[in-house]
Amino acid sequence: MEIGNEENALHIQVKNAIVNLISSGEFKPNTKLPTEAEFCQKYGVSRTTIRTALQQLTIEGYVYRKQGKGTFVAANKVKQNLTATVGQFSEQIMMQGYKPAIKVVSLDVIPASGFLEKIFNIAEGDPVNKLVRIRYVNGEPLQYEIAYLPWKKTPGLNKDACEKSLYNILQTQYQLPIKKTVEQLELVMANLEFANLLRISKGSPCFSLETYAYLNDGSIIEYSTTIYRSDLVNFVIERNY
Amino acid sequence: MEIGNEENALHIQVKNAIVNLISSGEFKPNTKLPTEAEFCQKYGVSRTTIRTALQQLTIEGYVYRKQGKGTFVAANKVKQNLTATVGQFSEQIMMQGYKPAIKVVSLDVIPASGFLEKIFNIAEGDPVNKLVRIRYVNGEPLQYEIAYLPWKKTPGLNKDACEKSLYNILQTQYQLPIKKTVEQLELVMANLEFANLLRISKGSPCFSLETYAYLNDGSIIEYSTTIYRSDLVNFVIERNY
Repeated sequence: MEIGNEENALHIQVKNAIVNLISSGEFKPNTKLPTEAEFCQKYGVSRTTIRTALQQLTIEGYVYRKQGKGTFVAANKVKQNLTATVGQFSEQIMMQGYKPAIKVVSLDVIPASGFLEKIFNIAEGDPVNKLVRIRYVNGEPLQYEIAYLPWKKTPGLNKDACEKSLYNILQTQYQLPIKKTVEQLELVMANLEFANLLRISKGSPCFSLETYAYLNDGSIIEYSTTIYRSDLVNFVIERNY
Repeated sequence: MEIGNEENALHIQVKNAIVNLISSGEFKPNTKLPTEAEFCQKYGVSRTTIRTALQQLTIEGYVYRKQGKGTFVAANKVKQNLTATVGQFSEQIMMQGYKPAIKVVSLDVIPASGFLEKIFNIAEGDPVNKLVRIRYVNGEPLQYEIAYLPWKKTPGLNKDACEKSLYNILQTQYQLPIKKTVEQLELVMANLEFANLLRISKGSPCFSLETYAYLNDGSIIEYSTTIYRSDLVNFVIERNY
């Protein structure tokens, strides 16, 4: 491969070339990359350019460094489609060759107040189901979610069933199919609680997805907050114009 | 407001109550919040609970602290809809009451190699337009993007026109309407270059959005990478089921 002649973009072109080799499977997950010297020779560029490219690849999570051992190809991130409405978590994960699992941490009934009272349009003290779950991929915790549902619409919510698909239960058990969701995605730093649950360091940047799920009549049936490990997941968005 | 009786969720309920007051406009951007002692009295909870709630609000970007001066309400984040296909950047920003601007940093023609050669299905050395832009909101840099377009399909791309809408130009000047985009959203740490351009510290977590834009015939007309300041932006996703 010949590298273009625009000096300050050289490292980007080298980076893209390496990404390409990773994506095509030529460089496999958890194998060692060629050395800096080998890359210099391969692409005919300076050591500084290679270093900058490798640094950027590290930042973007494509590779990781082991002290004194070199640079290794990172395992692929788990893709989650933010625009698809079909395909449950488990199916999306299995299609990528990973092993999914959903674990219910707790399922409690709490009294509504303030925020929940307002969004569910219920009275203060009315019961609300609070469902806390962790989703795993190949045994690693990927996302931690807290969901709230008005109890009067979802009485007797079953803990075990919530280890499959909540939206399926709403549709089949309660005849409450989801009509629409509105989500907000932000970046947050893990506090100690999230960090411990997701097995990452306190302060690690995470995705935070806040979801409002609506029924046909326009009422909110679920409000949830999900924290995702950003080192393991990336999101896919498809738009048709 | 009465707070529910589930001890370990108290700080979450206090947090949600404060978010509610911020969202409703009762607490306005850049004004000082009540003191910890005042919050204790208002909600009838311990100082620890208030501190935990405020800490979480700080982490999530709702409030910020000024040394020795107290806690202040953060300015609202700019919302960008990831699922809408209508409405340009400028319109989305203006609708939220902000002043948008797009600045072209550079527009160059570079020779294709490796990655670009492959995605555009062109020959090595074929010319490619490389467009670098920064988008501003109220004078603050919000996002930095590098877009590549095959030159043969977009000859004479005009720098000034790119300060409006690139997709508009493609449609009106080149009769190349975008049919579909596929995007991948990841979290990256700003390197020194991005940090300087976006006026943030090196290592700040940012959103990185990689976009492939397709024409009717299935070919890729644009490939771009955009880095967003996570302290200023959040994304909105709407799905209809």
